[in-house]
Amino acid sequence: MKLYETYADEIADLIRTGVLTPGARLPSVRKAKQQRKISAATVFEAYNLLESRGLIHCRPRSGYYVNLRKGPQAPEPHTATPTSESRPVAISDLVFEVLGSTRDVGMVPLGSAFPSAQLFPLDKLAKSLTPQMRSLAPAQLTGHLTAGDEKLRRQIALRYGTSGYRLEPGELVITNGAMEALNISLQAITQPGDLVVLESPTFYAALQVLERLKLRAVEVATHPRTGVDLNSLAEVLRLHPVKACWLMPQFQNPLGSLMPVDAKQALVRLLAQHNVPLIEDDVYGELYFGHHRAPPAKAFDTEGLVLHCSSFSKCLAPGYRVGWVAAGRFVQTIQRIKLMASLATAVPSQLAISTYLETGGFDRHLRQMRLRLEDNASKALRCIARYFPKGTKVTRPQGGYFLWVELPPSINALVAHRKATDAGISVAPGHLFSVDQRFDHHLRLNYGFPDGAELEVALQRLGTLLFTPE
Amino acid sequence: MKLYETYADEIADLIRTGVLTPGARLPSVRKAKQQRKISAATVFEAYNLLESRGLIHCRPRSGYYVNLRKGPQAPEPHTATPTSESRPVAISDLVFEVLGSTRDVGMVPLGSAFPSAQLFPLDKLAKSLTPQMRSLAPAQLTGHLTAGDEKLRRQIALRYGTSGYRLEPGELVITNGAMEALNISLQAITQPGDLVVLESPTFYAALQVLERLKLRAVEVATHPRTGVDLNSLAEVLRLHPVKACWLMPQFQNPLGSLMPVDAKQALVRLLAQHNVPLIEDDVYGELYFGHHRAPPAKAFDTEGLVLHCSSFSKCLAPGYRVGWVAAGRFVQTIQRIKLMASLATAVPSQLAISTYLETGGFDRHLRQMRLRLEDNASKALRCIARYFPKGTKVTRPQGGYFLWVELPPSINALVAHRKATDAGISVAPGHLFSVDQRFDHHLRLNYGFPDGAELEVALQRLGTLLFTPE
Repeated sequence: MKLYETYADEIADLIRTGVLTPGARLPSVRKAKQQRKISAATVFEAYNLLESRGLIHCRPRSGYYVNLRKGPQAPEPHTATPTSESRPVAISDLVFEVLGSTRDVGMVPLGSAFPSAQLFPLDKLAKSLTPQMRSLAPAQLTGHLTAGDEKLRRQIALRYGTSGYRLEPGELVITNGAMEALNISLQAITQPGDLVVLESPTFYAALQVLERLKLRAVEVATHPRTGVDLNSLAEVLRLHPVKACWLMPQFQNPLGSLMPVDAKQALVRLLAQHNVPLIEDDVYGELYFGHHRAPPAKAFDTEGLVLHCSSFSKCLAPGYRVGWVAAGRFVQTIQRIKLMASLATAVPSQLAISTYLETGGFDRHLRQMRLRLEDNASKALRCIARYFPKGTKVTRPQGGYFLWVELPPSINALVAHRKATDAGISVAPGHLFSVDQRFDHHLRLNYGFPDGAELEVALQRLGTLLFTPE
Repeated sequence: MKLYETYADEIADLIRTGVLTPGARLPSVRKAKQQRKISAATVFEAYNLLESRGLIHCRPRSGYYVNLRKGPQAPEPHTATPTSESRPVAISDLVFEVLGSTRDVGMVPLGSAFPSAQLFPLDKLAKSLTPQMRSLAPAQLTGHLTAGDEKLRRQIALRYGTSGYRLEPGELVITNGAMEALNISLQAITQPGDLVVLESPTFYAALQVLERLKLRAVEVATHPRTGVDLNSLAEVLRLHPVKACWLMPQFQNPLGSLMPVDAKQALVRLLAQHNVPLIEDDVYGELYFGHHRAPPAKAFDTEGLVLHCSSFSKCLAPGYRVGWVAAGRFVQTIQRIKLMASLATAVPSQLAISTYLETGGFDRHLRQMRLRLEDNASKALRCIARYFPKGTKVTRPQGGYFLWVELPPSINALVAHRKATDAGISVAPGHLFSVDQRFDHHLRLNYGFPDGAELEVALQRLGTLLFTPE
């Protein structure tokens, strides 16, 4: 990290924590230079960087000022309160029908499940591909493939290690993206007909996987900022023969909620009491706002009951299809299912990522990406307050790149989806995010745009559409 | 293809078809030069090539002679006659137990499921990786991923096209190796408890997948040279409510059998009469002996009932994990299951292979690989006749890289496996190749070695071990 970046990050922190308030004047270049013993050029570079991130602006002949980020914001939605009934899942057809038409490259991707691919260091990754493959011993391509490349597993374990908790490379199985990790994890611990706890709202892909595996779902109340409500979960566990929980304690899709550390710990303890495995979907774990990565639920797993799933698809390398599961006591079962399902994960992708991780560019990339996403989140909240119908509520995401928008009850999300599609904008209607389709006036919006201005234009257009009669 | 290669291939053909018999003298260089109007250097290069392939040898001051390839050979095994009972599958534990210890890189890999990785153009493939990824539009990494790269699908369709039958790129779904293609195909057409027809003997991975998906198996008599016995299959279809057939009409694993073209056509017709889909596992389809690629069963599929699965893992790019299914009428279902199971296949692997296919090195690589395998097969048959116990029978593979060896009934294959493992040689014991483990004195041996001499040493050592008392 270069000096000006460090300095810019410090100032960004002061803005975030409110030490530098909106409208406040930054130290003059001369003053900063003296105080910090850095060159004027470094100060200028830092201020330029902050300006490009939308955190400050320059007033000619006056100086640099903190942007007025906190405009009016729409209120937050309440905790959803699903019925505690368990039921079979039958949503897949709707998901395919609704999302099928909205994946075209030309669409404004507010409905996408991925952040813009322009946010990733794709060229550096591509350059990491060839050298490793050329120096590979041929036998490595047909030998012990299933668990995944040893070096990559060590690199992944190391990242957890530097965040303060230990993970053995031997517990890790590399998968074809997180999607396969989650599928295999469910298959390792459930049988058709078994009951699985999901959040409410929940990511539609989880519903689709449950449907495919003929599992039943029960949804649990989930707070839009702090995630799963543990009292509700305890009640569900008391009432139902639950076989697994599939939860996203960090930056839940679609809520963006983050369970506090204490709550994660209590969650793991509660599930251990019931001997119920937790499938922890942590694909957004690296996309936190602020400077500290919180420990995942897996960090508190003393019983080997947490199957922690993640991937590089959302934070580094979409399309490379490299994910993993830290499988606790289920590691042998997981390896066997992986072998039978797809034998192994693509070696070129694994080696490219392993090489990239070694060269050390990952943290810098993540810092930039997180700042962009956090800034986009602020912009999006302002736009929604300004352009969306009165009565709209919206989450305050703690990380990731999704907003969950509750429109006035008179607006049907599927109708809004159709209107938006016709106008060339994709959105993900709330119907897809629960078994009973009850989020019928909700939208999940993706703010993972490479350019904040483009995002604002898209949201303004979408807001206008919501006002137009059918 | 260079002129001397063409000429060498022609002579190889004459040897194969018996026009040039073992021990026969080849045309002198001068005569060949005149007859063919080619340079002496070309003739020499062709003869050198044939010599390096083990087809001819040079006698100083006398000329070139066809090698005495047909030494004594052990007899062929008979068609296995399985009971026509259907039963649940429970073999996976045995497979893991038996094969778990034999995958070490140091083992002599007679038990491996892969040919030696040294047989593949790994360096050329590696070089194909980076340029494509660097020129890729980022949106291609998060857009229409599931069916697979469009260019790769066209390349694959084109290969089928040049073999004389039409396949629409739209019918193809790219998968994480053939293993995923086969898994998804089964899931698309069966429910737990359903009945699936397999060959006898059959590849143990098929048994494992059936077990994982809780399917029942019924095995059908399979001739060691000509594959599935259609009368037996008709009988099975008459007796049982069969939901799918999983067969390998070309170079069956472990038999190496090849169904004649007529039989393939009759197979497809018979299954269409019963409205039973065929999962055609064609992963060895490119590894034929001789000069002509026979059409797969898929070529006769007028009803869209054949799910034709293959991959590049056995013929070009192990570890890249790129396979496909040509899914007929099931293409939409297959796409959906693929999306839910693993979203998409690694883009770097797809683009590397697509680029490699475009540059046109594939056919030359395959010609070399096929000749090496065919030559190894001859060598292996001679070794078995010479070094294995009296009473041993062995298949005459028509392609691929497996021999199926029937030892004298007094030799237990699991005991042989243990002795071989202790001596640093892996073998695949016959027990793994049927539901009822009845192939208890059989071994599958892999002759996909880069060096024929090394293969001969390994088989001689194994033969010696089979004679030693326990």
